[in-house]
Amino acid sequence: MIERYFAPLSKGFPGAYGLQDDAAVVTPTPGQQIVAKTDAIVGGVHFLPDDPADLVAQKALRVNLSDLAAKGAVARCYMLDLIMPSSTTEDWVAAFARGLARDQETFGVHLIGGDTNATPGPLTIALMALGEVPSGQMLRRGGARAGDTIFVSGTIGDATLGLAALRGALPELDGAAVGHLIDRYRLPVPRVGLGPRLIGLASATIDISDGLVADLGHICDVSRLGAVVDAARVPLSDAARRAIGGDRTRLEAALTGGDDYEILFTAPPEAAGKVEQLSREIGLAITPIGEMCAEPSDGRDRVVVLDEPGRPMELTQRGWEHF
Amino acid sequence: MIERYFAPLSKGFPGAYGLQDDAAVVTPTPGQQIVAKTDAIVGGVHFLPDDPADLVAQKALRVNLSDLAAKGAVARCYMLDLIMPSSTTEDWVAAFARGLARDQETFGVHLIGGDTNATPGPLTIALMALGEVPSGQMLRRGGARAGDTIFVSGTIGDATLGLAALRGALPELDGAAVGHLIDRYRLPVPRVGLGPRLIGLASATIDISDGLVADLGHICDVSRLGAVVDAARVPLSDAARRAIGGDRTRLEAALTGGDDYEILFTAPPEAAGKVEQLSREIGLAITPIGEMCAEPSDGRDRVVVLDEPGRPMELTQRGWEHF
Repeated sequence: MIERYFAPLSKGFPGAYGLQDDAAVVTPTPGQQIVAKTDAIVGGVHFLPDDPADLVAQKALRVNLSDLAAKGAVARCYMLDLIMPSSTTEDWVAAFARGLARDQETFGVHLIGGDTNATPGPLTIALMALGEVPSGQMLRRGGARAGDTIFVSGTIGDATLGLAALRGALPELDGAAVGHLIDRYRLPVPRVGLGPRLIGLASATIDISDGLVADLGHICDVSRLGAVVDAARVPLSDAARRAIGGDRTRLEAALTGGDDYEILFTAPPEAAGKVEQLSREIGLAITPIGEMCAEPSDGRDRVVVLDEPGRPMELTQRGWEHF
Repeated sequence: MIERYFAPLSKGFPGAYGLQDDAAVVTPTPGQQIVAKTDAIVGGVHFLPDDPADLVAQKALRVNLSDLAAKGAVARCYMLDLIMPSSTTEDWVAAFARGLARDQETFGVHLIGGDTNATPGPLTIALMALGEVPSGQMLRRGGARAGDTIFVSGTIGDATLGLAALRGALPELDGAAVGHLIDRYRLPVPRVGLGPRLIGLASATIDISDGLVADLGHICDVSRLGAVVDAARVPLSDAARRAIGGDRTRLEAALTGGDDYEILFTAPPEAAGKVEQLSREIGLAITPIGEMCAEPSDGRDRVVVLDEPGRPMELTQRGWEHF
């Protein structure tokens, strides 16, 4: 199985030795450091058991590529632990490997090693990605300053609304909009064109996997600051806008639901022009949505979201809860 | 939980940023390359559900350290995906982290990142270890030559006999011997003092995790050779020798069962003196057990094991089957 489906994925990366050696050699380009990141996904928790195998593979890879991008790193290679119930078919494995092959092409990465195992539990995929960043330049969560502008790439809330649609919770929405949201849930698009360009521009970065509010909260925690976000400025796709309508609960879901895989970053206000120019250059919307401020001293939530009239929203859930 | 139990394990590795950043920076020492390796272990497959948490942690780490050692690499750091059923208690996690802390001390490695997840299935631990090896010097499976001597470190078969004892299959064996075998099953000792010393000496190396016969078979496959092993020369502990007695099935289990985590390597016969000297220097038995030969042309098994009178043994199982 490894020889048939996985060894071909190591082609083009000499240090992987065709997966014959069960360990790989990685040499950073001179002047670069290795950035290492791992994320696992579990059937029934992070993906649905009947999600197509190729999309599951791509999701497992992309959630890691998204994190590397948010660190300013360029992904190079990955290792894969594939832990399978006995019901897993060879067709499933073949489709899974096809999904990886497609994304390797798209993102210029290679499989360099891994492990296959049996489990009496659900399909589980642990993936570890290695990238490169110019030495000493890895973007981090902790560098934000009070007064910095908060930016996000792309649009927010699509994936969580897509999951709601998959569960039948958006019956009134038209098919095209539902399709868009579900696609965004099933197949995140890591912002690999943006992350490395933020070196020297952003003061703090994170990829939004737990939800906009929770991940901005992580930046606040590590930077020891607070943040104020204008809900009305948070960028929404047309489909998300229609799904939300005037429904406050759905707006809240969009702001707090997970799996966006957009990059949230902070930068000093005077960087706004450069951010705008970068957005045009890479053809990706980057929207200012709020501002970093001093750490709240009275135990209040670090992240305050203001509604259209400018009142703090009561958020009943502040982060992603897996189903 | 991460802050309390895992962040302290990143202390001493600046690129881990106290696990606050969800990605780590690794810089190889000049003249060295990174060697990357991953192995996952699954509850009920690779360890028993009631195995002590600290030993499970140490096993998860050590199986990876063993592989790095067999590559000639010195381990530096690791990432950990901990995938837990809801029944996992905080006490369990605390003991698990204590096990890691103990081994970090022993082996000089640090936790640099990871992921915790929920699963409806069994406890699953995916661990990825990074080490360093002098550039271009990683030891591999494919370099053996016909006529090379086959060496193994330590003793063979203890772990698989320990598992048999745990299942009550060795009722006649005394307590001390049973204890020794079970210890060897529960807590492998990666041969980190040996592996890096084999650079420039060994022509091919592998760590024995699937069983002596199967792992020697991997060297044969990649080196395109055959191998002949004398069963009587395979080093056994006193406990294993007593457990086996004259029982041919048990001898076979020792030769083919997994989890030894010794290093098997090949070297030209003229290296024997240097191997002996190395064995004395590091205080670890290294025993010649056979010889590499030409690839069998007629579809016979690549690895032939000769019994005491010198007849090829019929091995009914040739590799490790997890329980």
